[in-house]
Amino acid sequence: MVKPRLSRGLRDLRSDHMLARQHLIDTARKVYELYGFAPLETPAVEYLDVLSGSAGQEAQGQIFRVFNPEEEELGLRFDLTVPLSRFVAQQKDLVLPFRRYQVSPVWRADKPAPGRFREFVQFDLDSVGTDSEVADTEIIAGMCDTLDALKAGPYKVRFSSRKILNLLLRFSSIPEAAGAEVFRVLDKLDKIGAAKVRLELTDGYVDESGDTITGVGLRSEQVDKIEQFLAIPASDRDQVLESLRGLFSGVENAEEELHAVGRISSHLNALGYKSDRVVIDVSIARGLAYYTGPVFEAVLLDAPQFGSVFAGGRYDDLVTRFTGQRIPATGASLGVDRLLAALVELQRVPLRHTTSQVLVTAMDASLMSEYLAITYELRRAGIPAEIHLGKPKKLGKQLQRADRLAIPFVIIMGGDEAARDAVTLKEMDVGREKAAEVAGHDEWKSARFGQQEVKRADLVGTLTKLLAERE
Amino acid sequence: MVKPRLSRGLRDLRSDHMLARQHLIDTARKVYELYGFAPLETPAVEYLDVLSGSAGQEAQGQIFRVFNPEEEELGLRFDLTVPLSRFVAQQKDLVLPFRRYQVSPVWRADKPAPGRFREFVQFDLDSVGTDSEVADTEIIAGMCDTLDALKAGPYKVRFSSRKILNLLLRFSSIPEAAGAEVFRVLDKLDKIGAAKVRLELTDGYVDESGDTITGVGLRSEQVDKIEQFLAIPASDRDQVLESLRGLFSGVENAEEELHAVGRISSHLNALGYKSDRVVIDVSIARGLAYYTGPVFEAVLLDAPQFGSVFAGGRYDDLVTRFTGQRIPATGASLGVDRLLAALVELQRVPLRHTTSQVLVTAMDASLMSEYLAITYELRRAGIPAEIHLGKPKKLGKQLQRADRLAIPFVIIMGGDEAARDAVTLKEMDVGREKAAEVAGHDEWKSARFGQQEVKRADLVGTLTKLLAERE
Repeated sequence: MVKPRLSRGLRDLRSDHMLARQHLIDTARKVYELYGFAPLETPAVEYLDVLSGSAGQEAQGQIFRVFNPEEEELGLRFDLTVPLSRFVAQQKDLVLPFRRYQVSPVWRADKPAPGRFREFVQFDLDSVGTDSEVADTEIIAGMCDTLDALKAGPYKVRFSSRKILNLLLRFSSIPEAAGAEVFRVLDKLDKIGAAKVRLELTDGYVDESGDTITGVGLRSEQVDKIEQFLAIPASDRDQVLESLRGLFSGVENAEEELHAVGRISSHLNALGYKSDRVVIDVSIARGLAYYTGPVFEAVLLDAPQFGSVFAGGRYDDLVTRFTGQRIPATGASLGVDRLLAALVELQRVPLRHTTSQVLVTAMDASLMSEYLAITYELRRAGIPAEIHLGKPKKLGKQLQRADRLAIPFVIIMGGDEAARDAVTLKEMDVGREKAAEVAGHDEWKSARFGQQEVKRADLVGTLTKLLAERE
Repeated sequence: MVKPRLSRGLRDLRSDHMLARQHLIDTARKVYELYGFAPLETPAVEYLDVLSGSAGQEAQGQIFRVFNPEEEELGLRFDLTVPLSRFVAQQKDLVLPFRRYQVSPVWRADKPAPGRFREFVQFDLDSVGTDSEVADTEIIAGMCDTLDALKAGPYKVRFSSRKILNLLLRFSSIPEAAGAEVFRVLDKLDKIGAAKVRLELTDGYVDESGDTITGVGLRSEQVDKIEQFLAIPASDRDQVLESLRGLFSGVENAEEELHAVGRISSHLNALGYKSDRVVIDVSIARGLAYYTGPVFEAVLLDAPQFGSVFAGGRYDDLVTRFTGQRIPATGASLGVDRLLAALVELQRVPLRHTTSQVLVTAMDASLMSEYLAITYELRRAGIPAEIHLGKPKKLGKQLQRADRLAIPFVIIMGGDEAARDAVTLKEMDVGREKAAEVAGHDEWKSARFGQQEVKRADLVGTLTKLLAERE
C-alpha cells in the first residue's frame, strides 16, 4: 500500500480557498480584459538553460528539475517573466506592443515555512515593445483598479524609478558600477535600520553573532547625501518631485529624468489616481539589477505583514539574453495566493464550502424522480442546488450536511407534501437561531424551525426572492 | 546567448485559443457550480510512487519525473483522478458525498504527433462516497448540459456498464478472470473490424506485417454469443434494455443489473435527456480494468475524428491502494483542449486576438492626457479599450494594429476635433468594405471610410449602441 502524502511545501486547496481564489482571478481578469490585455499560456515545463540563465532569479537552487522520457534537462518555471521573454524572442510575427496577461502556477523550492508554499499562482501583465510612460501609467492604474474591484480595503501603491536612483549615484559621486551594491544595502533599511546601513555602506561592522559584514567603502559625506535623499517622505507626489528637483539641482540629466516621472504622475492625476493611494516613495529599491525605469509595488495598509502583493516595473532587456536585441517592456505581477492569504486574514473575502444554495433531501425512495425533477428545476432557474446522493435516510443526517457545508436552504418532501403538490422549505440559519432559543433542544432532530410550506409551482419564485434578500 | 525554444510536445497558447479555452472552462464551471460541485486544487507535483502505482495509467513511461532540491523522487500528475484519490485517502474530516471539480493541466510524455501535446487541460468532476444511481445520472446529465451550454452542436452520449459486460461473460460462459483480455480485444472493433476480432478472440492470426497475433482461445460458439450481443444497435434506450433482457434471460443477476441501468435511463427520461442524445451502446468497453459500474462517453457527431471529448464512469476502488478501503465514486473528465480543438475545427467557437473593442489612437502628443481620459471613460463604462502606446505617429500604422488584432472601432482625435469637443469614430470593417469598393484605393491611407464625428459627451452612448448591434 502506498502512503497518501504530499512533498514538502506543497498543498491541496479546498473549495473555500479555491472559490475565493477563483473570484480573485476572475475579478483581476475582468479588469485587464477591459484594458485590452489578452491571455497567453506557456507550458509549465521549460528547458533548464532557458530558466537558469535569467538574471531575475537569485536562487537557481529553487528550481524543480524535470526530465522527460528523452532525458532532456528541463525545469518548472519559477516566474512568468522568463517564459514571456522566451516566447517573445521566438516570435517573428508578434504585433507590438504586445499586451498580455498570464495566470498560472509557478514553482519555487523555497525553504518550507508557515504560509510559504512551493507552488503558487501569479497573475502577470506586461506591455512589451513600448517605452511610453502611458504604458507605465496603465500598469499603476490597473493595480489600483484591481485592488478596488476586489474591495481589498485601503492600500498604497508606491512607485519610484531606477533612474531616480541613478541620479542619487551621481549626486553622491558614486560610480554607476557600484550602484547594485549600494542598492542591495539600501534594500535592508527596513530590516536592519539606518545606523547599520550607514556602517555597511562605509567600513562594515561585526554583527551580534560575530560575523563580519564587509563595508561598501563609501565616504561619510557620500552616505550623508544618501540620507538626505532617503529623508524625503513618501507623501504628495508633486511635493516629492519638488524636493527631488531641489536636491538634484545641477545633477546631470536630473531635470529630464524627473520630468519623465512627473509625466506618469500627471497622467495618474488626470485619471483620478491621486496621492492618497499612489505615492512616490524614493526608499523602494526593489530588484534594481533587473528593472531599468519605473518600479511600483502595492501594499495593503491593513496587512503590511504580507509585504507587497502586487509589484513590477520597467525592464528594457526582456529578450536580450535570447536575441541580443533590446525590447522595452513594463509590467507587474499580482501574487494571487499572497493577496488571497491577506484577504482571508482580513476577512475581506467570503469563504464558502460549496456553491450550493439548496439541498434537496430524499425521504422516500419512491419519490426519487420527483426530487431529481425539483433539483433540475432549480438548476435550470439558475439556483445552485444539490440532491441527497444516497439511500433515503434520516433527515437529521441530511440536515447535518447542509449545516457543515453552510448550504442555506433545504427542501423536504414526504408523501404528504407530495400529495398536496407542495414542499417544505427550511432556512437553515433561521432554524438554527430559533432552535438556539429553545434551551437544550437538539436542533438536528427538529425539522420544524425556520421552515414553511411552499406550493411546488411557487418554489422557484419563493427561493429567488429569499436568496435575493440574503445578498 | 540561449536559444529560445520549447521541448517537444509543448506549446504556447496565444490569446485567440486562450480566450476560447477560458470561455469553455467558464461555461463548464458555471454548469457544475449550479450542480453544487465545488472546486479542489491539488499540486502539479506528486510523489512518484503515488502516481506510478495507479492502475489507470498503462504507460508509466509517460510520466515527467521531477526532483526538488532535496532530490525526492517526484513526478507531474498525468490525470486528476490519482491526485483526487490521494487527497480523499488523506482526509479525516471530509463531508461525504464529496462532490468536486478540478480544472488543471496534466502532463503525459506521449509520442509527439500533430495535434497531440504533452501538457493539456482536463476538467474533472466526481461524486465521491456515493453508490447512488442518481449520482451517475447527474454525471450524464451534466455532460449534456455542458455540451448544450457550449453550443457544441449535435452530440451523442453513449453509456453502458461494466456490469452488462459481466452478464455477457456469464452468457458466453467465459470466466470472469478472462474478461479483461476479451474486452481489450473488443475495444479494437472499430479499428480492426469484426473478422479480425473473431480471429483474435479464438485462435489468433498473422497480420499484414507478418506479426503473430496470439488468440484469446475462445470457442467459436462463445464468439457467436458475443456477436449476438454486439449486434444490439445503440438506439432507443428502452429498446436496448428490452433486447438485453431477452438475450440475457436466465443469466444469473441479469434482471437486477439491467434494472439498475434502467433506473439511470428512467431518471434521465424524467429530466428530459432522451434517446436522441443519450443512448445505451453495448459496444463501448472503455477502461474496463478501472471502471466497476456505468461508463459513459460523449462524441460530437460533426467531429467524430476527435473521439470522445468527455468520458467517465463509476469506479469503486478510488482509495483502495492507499487505505485498503472501498469508497464508491463516479465521475467524468472533459478533455478541455481536445474539445477546444474540435470546436475550433468546426468553427463553433469565436477566435479573437484581443478583448479590445476600441483602439484610441494618438495623433498629437499634447493631447495624450485627453486620449488617456477617453480610454478610461470607455473602460469605466465597461467597454474594453486600449490606447496607442507609443509616440504619436502615422495614423495608418495605428489603424494597421486595429486591423491585425481585429479591433472593431478606432477613435481619432486631432486638434480640430478636440477644439470642437468631438472625436472621429471609425468602424473598421465598414471602412474596409467601403474602401474595397473604390478600386485600387489604399484603405489604410484613407481615414474617411466608415467614420463619423461624435460629440465627446455622446461617445460612450454611441459605442454602447453600436457594440450591441454587432452582437
